[in-house]
Amino acid sequence: MQPLVERIRAEGRSLGNGILKVDGFINHQLDPQLTVEMGKSFARRFAQANVTQITKVITAEVSGIAPALTTAIELQVPLVYARKKRPITMPEGCYVAQAPSHTKGGIVELIVSPEYLKPQDRVLLIDDFLASGRTIEALATLVAECGATLCGIGCVIEKRFEGGRTLLNHLQVPIVTLAVIDSMQEDRIFVRSPEQDTDNRG
Amino acid sequence: MQPLVERIRAEGRSLGNGILKVDGFINHQLDPQLTVEMGKSFARRFAQANVTQITKVITAEVSGIAPALTTAIELQVPLVYARKKRPITMPEGCYVAQAPSHTKGGIVELIVSPEYLKPQDRVLLIDDFLASGRTIEALATLVAECGATLCGIGCVIEKRFEGGRTLLNHLQVPIVTLAVIDSMQEDRIFVRSPEQDTDNRG
Repeated sequence: MQPLVERIRAEGRSLGNGILKVDGFINHQLDPQLTVEMGKSFARRFAQANVTQITKVITAEVSGIAPALTTAIELQVPLVYARKKRPITMPEGCYVAQAPSHTKGGIVELIVSPEYLKPQDRVLLIDDFLASGRTIEALATLVAECGATLCGIGCVIEKRFEGGRTLLNHLQVPIVTLAVIDSMQEDRIFVRSPEQDTDNRG
Repeated sequence: MQPLVERIRAEGRSLGNGILKVDGFINHQLDPQLTVEMGKSFARRFAQANVTQITKVITAEVSGIAPALTTAIELQVPLVYARKKRPITMPEGCYVAQAPSHTKGGIVELIVSPEYLKPQDRVLLIDDFLASGRTIEALATLVAECGATLCGIGCVIEKRFEGGRTLLNHLQVPIVTLAVIDSMQEDRIFVRSPEQDTDNRG
């Protein structure tokens, strides 16, 4: 997705240890038009990959919510966002999976209520980053525990050098990302559109 | 906003102690069409209240993000979401305000980086609930600390019986809510469209 790649080039900052700061358009401030385009891009790319008849989008709070919502708007299906702390409105008997937090340290829990994810659901998993793949894997585990079918994984930014795509291979679903970072060195970020973008529209 | 009022009547659950469960369309699962309508409704209602030339929308993670994003999409301005834990991508020198958490207990911190909220900004504050008003007040404090101008407050659901509107009177800005709950008793929720909805479109 070329506008996203250009935005990362213009505003992304490499903070060392593989940490990418994109607070100006993903993790703290959002550009509404860019976020809408992410949703349209995911919808188009999954349709091209023959991922169809999706009934739910799932993501994890916090930064996954925006691109997942615009994807859900485009696909006209509900969005479920996994909670990291169980609010008192959530019943007992929820599914819980654990993943390490990349930008906050420690382990986070991801919690989904089976009220909203059913065995007949065909699920698209959307998140902001594909890095180590551990958060995505935890979400995929929750989808499986609910008995639903995971049909595709979409992440806004892929840090290819962290190997998440390889970790998720065993899930055997299409993995779509909108911008790929091959490496980051000091103040340089090597970012490009993914290989699949043969039409250059991302 | 009549579709929202009807959804609360159909699916909202009173859990006691003033806690309303709306996990099916606000706090865990989102209905994309309803969320888009919330954004359109806020934009229309603030225009009617002569709240114009907005340059930023602000909200707090987590559940404020969705209605704030659709409002930002409608107004075509960036959205800033206050973080509850400082990610390592955030610089030192951020503004921090504290508010009690209604559904999780304890005190939460709300953190905004002055990188994205400037003195020239005219800000609309959007959140999911107006209850005690303490979270909104904390966000308003952050807006003031950044030197920006708060122009209006919009909340999806107002629990009128918790008095938040009175607490926020001193901010002297229009407060727009899309559904008003006058009281909750055991399994009964007394919900209606707000008085301002003379056109019944919410």
